[in-house]
Amino acid sequence: MEVREGYRLEHDSIGEKEVPEEAYYGVQTLRAYENFHITGLKIHSQLIVSVAQIKKAAAITNCEVGVLSRDKADAIVRACDEIIKGRLHDQFIVDPIQGGAGTSLNMNANEVIANRAIELMGGKKGDYSVINPNDDVNCGQSTNDVFPSCGKMTTLTLLENAQEQLNRLEEALLAKAAEFDSVIKMGRTQLQDAVPIRLGQEFHAYAGGIRRDIGRFEAAKEEVRSLNLGGTAIGTGLNADTAYFRRVVKNTSTISGEELVQSYDTIDATQNLDNYAMVSGIVKSCAVNLSKMCNDLRLMSSGPRTGFCEINLPAKQNGSSIMPGKINPVIPEVVNQVAFNIIGNDMTIAMATEAGQLELNAFEPVIFYKLFESIQTLTNAVRTLVDNCITGITANEEHCREMVENSIGIITAICPYVGYETAANIAKEALRSNASVRDLILQKKLMTEEQLKDILDPYTMTKPGIRGKDPMDILKN
Amino acid sequence: MEVREGYRLEHDSIGEKEVPEEAYYGVQTLRAYENFHITGLKIHSQLIVSVAQIKKAAAITNCEVGVLSRDKADAIVRACDEIIKGRLHDQFIVDPIQGGAGTSLNMNANEVIANRAIELMGGKKGDYSVINPNDDVNCGQSTNDVFPSCGKMTTLTLLENAQEQLNRLEEALLAKAAEFDSVIKMGRTQLQDAVPIRLGQEFHAYAGGIRRDIGRFEAAKEEVRSLNLGGTAIGTGLNADTAYFRRVVKNTSTISGEELVQSYDTIDATQNLDNYAMVSGIVKSCAVNLSKMCNDLRLMSSGPRTGFCEINLPAKQNGSSIMPGKINPVIPEVVNQVAFNIIGNDMTIAMATEAGQLELNAFEPVIFYKLFESIQTLTNAVRTLVDNCITGITANEEHCREMVENSIGIITAICPYVGYETAANIAKEALRSNASVRDLILQKKLMTEEQLKDILDPYTMTKPGIRGKDPMDILKN
Amino acid sequence: MEVREGYRLEHDSIGEKEVPEEAYYGVQTLRAYENFHITGLKIHSQLIVSVAQIKKAAAITNCEVGVLSRDKADAIVRACDEIIKGRLHDQFIVDPIQGGAGTSLNMNANEVIANRAIELMGGKKGDYSVINPNDDVNCGQSTNDVFPSCGKMTTLTLLENAQEQLNRLEEALLAKAAEFDSVIKMGRTQLQDAVPIRLGQEFHAYAGGIRRDIGRFEAAKEEVRSLNLGGTAIGTGLNADTAYFRRVVKNTSTISGEELVQSYDTIDATQNLDNYAMVSGIVKSCAVNLSKMCNDLRLMSSGPRTGFCEINLPAKQNGSSIMPGKINPVIPEVVNQVAFNIIGNDMTIAMATEAGQLELNAFEPVIFYKLFESIQTLTNAVRTLVDNCITGITANEEHCREMVENSIGIITAICPYVGYETAANIAKEALRSNASVRDLILQKKLMTEEQLKDILDPYTMTKPGIRGKDPMDILKN
Amino acid sequence: MEVREGYRLEHDSIGEKEVPEEAYYGVQTLRAYENFHITGLKIHSQLIVSVAQIKKAAAITNCEVGVLSRDKADAIVRACDEIIKGRLHDQFIVDPIQGGAGTSLNMNANEVIANRAIELMGGKKGDYSVINPNDDVNCGQSTNDVFPSCGKMTTLTLLENAQEQLNRLEEALLAKAAEFDSVIKMGRTQLQDAVPIRLGQEFHAYAGGIRRDIGRFEAAKEEVRSLNLGGTAIGTGLNADTAYFRRVVKNTSTISGEELVQSYDTIDATQNLDNYAMVSGIVKSCAVNLSKMCNDLRLMSSGPRTGFCEINLPAKQNGSSIMPGKINPVIPEVVNQVAFNIIGNDMTIAMATEAGQLELNAFEPVIFYKLFESIQTLTNAVRTLVDNCITGITANEEHCREMVENSIGIITAICPYVGYETAANIAKEALRSNASVRDLILQKKLMTEEQLKDILDPYTMTKPGIRGKDPMDILKN
Repeated sequence: MEVREGYRLEHDSIGEKEVPEEAYYGVQTLRAYENFHITGLKIHSQLIVSVAQIKKAAAITNCEVGVLSRDKADAIVRACDEIIKGRLHDQFIVDPIQGGAGTSLNMNANEVIANRAIELMGGKKGDYSVINPNDDVNCGQSTNDVFPSCGKMTTLTLLENAQEQLNRLEEALLAKAAEFDSVIKMGRTQLQDAVPIRLGQEFHAYAGGIRRDIGRFEAAKEEVRSLNLGGTAIGTGLNADTAYFRRVVKNTSTISGEELVQSYDTIDATQNLDNYAMVSGIVKSCAVNLSKMCNDLRLMSSGPRTGFCEINLPAKQNGSSIMPGKINPVIPEVVNQVAFNIIGNDMTIAMATEAGQLELNAFEPVIFYKLFESIQTLTNAVRTLVDNCITGITANEEHCREMVENSIGIITAICPYVGYETAANIAKEALRSNASVRDLILQKKLMTEEQLKDILDPYTMTKPGIRGKDPMDILKN
Repeated sequence: MEVREGYRLEHDSIGEKEVPEEAYYGVQTLRAYENFHITGLKIHSQLIVSVAQIKKAAAITNCEVGVLSRDKADAIVRACDEIIKGRLHDQFIVDPIQGGAGTSLNMNANEVIANRAIELMGGKKGDYSVINPNDDVNCGQSTNDVFPSCGKMTTLTLLENAQEQLNRLEEALLAKAAEFDSVIKMGRTQLQDAVPIRLGQEFHAYAGGIRRDIGRFEAAKEEVRSLNLGGTAIGTGLNADTAYFRRVVKNTSTISGEELVQSYDTIDATQNLDNYAMVSGIVKSCAVNLSKMCNDLRLMSSGPRTGFCEINLPAKQNGSSIMPGKINPVIPEVVNQVAFNIIGNDMTIAMATEAGQLELNAFEPVIFYKLFESIQTLTNAVRTLVDNCITGITANEEHCREMVENSIGIITAICPYVGYETAANIAKEALRSNASVRDLILQKKLMTEEQLKDILDPYTMTKPGIRGKDPMDILKN
Repeated sequence: MEVREGYRLEHDSIGEKEVPEEAYYGVQTLRAYENFHITGLKIHSQLIVSVAQIKKAAAITNCEVGVLSRDKADAIVRACDEIIKGRLHDQFIVDPIQGGAGTSLNMNANEVIANRAIELMGGKKGDYSVINPNDDVNCGQSTNDVFPSCGKMTTLTLLENAQEQLNRLEEALLAKAAEFDSVIKMGRTQLQDAVPIRLGQEFHAYAGGIRRDIGRFEAAKEEVRSLNLGGTAIGTGLNADTAYFRRVVKNTSTISGEELVQSYDTIDATQNLDNYAMVSGIVKSCAVNLSKMCNDLRLMSSGPRTGFCEINLPAKQNGSSIMPGKINPVIPEVVNQVAFNIIGNDMTIAMATEAGQLELNAFEPVIFYKLFESIQTLTNAVRTLVDNCITGITANEEHCREMVENSIGIITAICPYVGYETAANIAKEALRSNASVRDLILQKKLMTEEQLKDILDPYTMTKPGIRGKDPMDILKN
Repeated sequence: MEVREGYRLEHDSIGEKEVPEEAYYGVQTLRAYENFHITGLKIHSQLIVSVAQIKKAAAITNCEVGVLSRDKADAIVRACDEIIKGRLHDQFIVDPIQGGAGTSLNMNANEVIANRAIELMGGKKGDYSVINPNDDVNCGQSTNDVFPSCGKMTTLTLLENAQEQLNRLEEALLAKAAEFDSVIKMGRTQLQDAVPIRLGQEFHAYAGGIRRDIGRFEAAKEEVRSLNLGGTAIGTGLNADTAYFRRVVKNTSTISGEELVQSYDTIDATQNLDNYAMVSGIVKSCAVNLSKMCNDLRLMSSGPRTGFCEINLPAKQNGSSIMPGKINPVIPEVVNQVAFNIIGNDMTIAMATEAGQLELNAFEPVIFYKLFESIQTLTNAVRTLVDNCITGITANEEHCREMVENSIGIITAICPYVGYETAANIAKEALRSNASVRDLILQKKLMTEEQLKDILDPYTMTKPGIRGKDPMDILKN
């Protein structure tokens, strides 16, 4: 077979194939590239780093236990280090959604590392007698232990990034909780006027939800610390030197700087991907909290004239191409959308996890694709939420107070003194006649002005307690 | 208004209404019943018990702190005890899917308890001057703290029931892992022959997944131990006596026998329902593991003549109305279906959780409906899986061994000695010529029979390790 | 084996088993009942009717083509007619979620019909020499053609019921659209004040969505008109007399009164359940529209003092057990919950449909369970929405008008005359200074009062059009 | 404010901002870019084309009706044509997931077109006195009619591309159906041996599912042909010249070459996005069919030695980095993953559609992002499925026939002659004794060899029919 100018000839079990001369990837990568034009996107950069860290750890371990020569190991390690530093990422050309449980990515890594190591040893790309992608770079490994492991490592890193932003969000919310602690407003249940609350209490409640999420992210990280490295093809460890089996995860842990352990049962860890389903479930719960909070922010800032008008979100961009001066809650809106996406991704991940068969789950690529998207977009959404929204929120304190004073819901505080039914009748009359609750109570001589002053004090209403053990006491004074 | 024979007249803010004389529920329950004919189903029995436990705790606490008389409290407690013991459940007539954040169920409970307590005090049903559903039974409470709290208590109980079955499942799987430890079979990845594994190892892997699920159920239980009782309408505790606020959860804990604490922030706990989303996510992860395992059981037992035929599931019923003698894997199949249902329910729960607005999430009824269904059906499915399937599984040991010996995948063990490429060529030739891998290696004089005996020993292949530090050693002997 | 008092002994391939003497179901039903305690619920009544219609059609057809005697056929037909009329439904004891692709329900039907037919022929329940459940009642059939077919027939009936309610909803919305045609209010985009709209236009838009849904329900009905009856076990028609194969669907169509045809490819129709996935998708789209509309109704009726207060929903029940006089939007809320449930069900149905393998989808039971729940609850929710909400909605016309006059969004209408940038500056100034847009324009002498009168007429603003070809014309006058 | 070298200064309602001198986008785009770093991805190229087609149509229409000068219109049209041809796409820098209902993309388009048009008129980028992005390019438009409309146009194009591939798939499947028409194999239900079928019948059934999908894609296209162009901000058409309102969709139709109509109710079409939910539901149904078929292909090709081994998929790449010679079903696997993704996307789209509020759905960006991904990846997956899998499938005819002959399931054909119970006993005995069904029947003298020859002919068993009206006839001969 004559080879075209600018190409080299490689072969694999399928046959021969021309590969661009300058390419570090090889024939197997190229076949995968041609088989899978699906998303048109690139592999997540952190996943490329993680796979290189594993390949480096494997080379060192294989050298330590004597199944890989020092020369080869050194060259492989140097090639991996370049990738870890961010070089050669453009040589990873396979689609994130790929058939074959990640073999395509693993071989892409094996080939890129082999060819770069060959170069470093003075050889020529494609001369796999110098360094062989399968026998040397992939030594003691299988896609089926490498791919799940690098997926977990990437997940761990992304979760840490997310936690950082969630911590910032919690702080920002608590700061607002303090700032708005004295802003009295109407609480609403089912969008109907309920009883008074302080705006600061609302932000404190949001912070509480985020605090729980942060705690759950800790649990999520524990889900992905155990790697099935050493398990090779199906977790039994066939072809992995026993010393390698015992050491490779420890070395990976050192190289990556992450606390990692070997799975208690590498067979289980090769075929059951519930860890990813669980991480996704945790991310989804966080998305739910974020979306609920953002819905509230949009409701509370609705207006400026015909809505709730309780708070103002910072103006970040023109809201409309046709309506001048319109400012929209674009930052909360984008968080909502990210949340919807994460919730959908969670379903995809559940399905793909469920679809594993026997010794392997062949659907990890789509799990990683969606899980990384979920965590990454959540991180980005929270960052912009903190920076471009929460920290700049201001309160319309006066308007909030007026709404409380004008409300009917404060009748609830009268209940312990006059009973539910009488109170309900006053509420109905107030609504019908457009009168104030306070006036009606006085008019009906149910209480004196002095009694009411205490009972209807809005700030008091935002805390537990009725006046005295016996609510009737206050009436007797 | 003239009242029909067999009815009594009640009224509420909406107006008057006839209620069947013998009914313990009242006018508000009846309106809810008429508004919501949705599923046609009944409230989960455990939820009725939980709400009665809360009403009992509230009555005791209100009495302790002096806002409810001893007589009234006693009658309420006795009525609650009857419900806790399973009586009067037929009086709970509202639909599980109901508008209004559970007000309908809470009022149903208030009315049933009030009327039964009235009876116990010698009064007549409907005479709320004796015991008032709102002022007495609901004293210091709101639907918005009662309903989420009884939902959590029910969830806790259901999770415990589920854990019990999961523990049984793990034990059954481990027993099979031991029983099948020496059954060698072909492992498969992507449904293609891979390398040998022991059937016991596979069951051990299933047990591993279930073990993780059991651990996560512990975490799930922690999600639902904190109640917002005392928070009343929106979590601020308005109208809850401060002493009541501090004591009611402790009393509920004692009465229910469950370890319960008050939410750190009752406002947060009233409006954010991420705990339920998280519990559902955990149940979903378990469903995913169960479904994957059941898919495998169905695959491994496929046959009896044209499938994998590795194991036999116990015959539980005729498989077909037309095909005589056919036995189908009906128990795993029902587990699959339960899993699909749980995964869909998780979506519903996520949506309903996300939809909360401001001080309350009005969509708790559907969350409870689906969450209880998820946990309950999972429990039931696991029970039948253990009793009617796992414990009766037998292995076709000989057939399994023959398949290993006849396989091509064992070539992998040769790889460290001859390299990936040579091994691949032998594999292809074996497949093409229908020859055995062993014969080809001998024929090509790549190894001696003695060397092969060691390397191709199937049991050895199911553990980590290659022969000697340098795989070449074995060839030199 | 000695038989207990009150039981009869039956046997099947699995062995012998006592069956309650009075039971019409038999041994196979009982095994299924014991294997599947999953939901604890009963088979949908309409599904029982549908299966009886098919059994009747099969008996008639088998008699016509000469494979079933007239005597037997007559007895079977009479037994089926009883079930169709609603009798014996309590004898259908198998769980809706059952392993085995519906064999349990099919055998339950075969046994009940056989035993009732035996009685009608003067025999004794359990004496299957008179009428055999498999050879006679199930003659020419398989679970695999009966179960999908009766599922489709039930779906068809339920869809028709749903359509009826959707038609009522559309009418009610159009009536409100007419009633509110002159109520001018502020339109809002992204919850921010936009430009004026008429309340009637909003209801017209809701009706538009429902109209599309009704059309899609027509398409949904077409999805389920083709039955695979005659295909028997795997669609190939084995053991179905060729004349029976050609006639059975026609007879089923006549008996059920529904327009039904035989599937073009009965093999396809036995294994591919995309019709159900599609029907569910259509129901889900309708749920989405309903939920969006109900969200709007809740927003527009928010208040009564601190919300949008544009419309009033009829008060259907007390809204709160603690807050007197509170009325909540409980009817829209229940519709939201039903919608969330339907959307989750759609996920379950998609998963179960995807999980079919080779000649059959064994997961039909859960598909039917969820699909029937989706359609039925949608029907019920729409019914209460029409009766208890839409028809009683009233508008707060004056409040709506005031909000328009006080708004800033009307500045948009000025845009064509002064440009986006100038208009934006006026909007900002109005917001800052709390002035009205109209005053600012006059003050800046951008327009005369007369010009403004025309341009800022709210009703005009709710229709397309600017004044004259060249907007500048109006300024020149 | 001093401007940095290489930048120009622009301003909007928010304030001033430096924009890179060479950029065609402007200040509003830049703000959006900074607000939304979410996915890091680019806007779908076809959406950019669609928005340019609309802007072109609007310019022409505005010119026709006299609200835009011929000079300006010409320049805008030329700028749009460049974008339609694929130029300037790199100037569309906003994230696909963006807050604000698409305002960011619409303004990005307005600014790029304005600046390019300014250049074409001899002006300098940023000099919006020549052509104004809002007043001129966006004339008569709003994001709220432009964005939904270009989303629909893009959807239409993508659906057409998908249909083309689905048509190819149907053809390929029908070709295989013909090719494999005489290959007799065992049918399986619930993975258990059932009765014979021809491999060609199976492929015909797959084709049937795809044919229905193609039909549904036609319906999907109808869902997106009606545009709300002319409706402007909230569908009322404010600021759209009435003549423009009537003509703009017609012009868009001409320019795009697609059959497009104006929505019957532009208010409805602005706020209700059920069309997208429906299209997504249709795409999901197709994904379900594809995934089921691919699951079957993986099952049927399982092996090569220990699986079903009925068919061979073409080898497209090495299957394993550790197991030599292993070939995996990577193409079906990637289709499965795409299907899982589409199903998850459908949930996201349902949620986002449901979340619309009042006059607008602000969550269109994520709907488009996911819907385009769904259709595009489905198209790509089907293309590789046809080219790299279906067309190259071969059958192992002999192995298939042997399995039929060796099977027990053929006993079903005996049923009409000996009854279900006798047949079941033979089946059980065959299984227990490892004997053949045929031998047992002969041995028991239930039938003669000649009778059996006819009844047990495998080909005959793949079609409807029993021998003669009365099955007993055959026994009498």
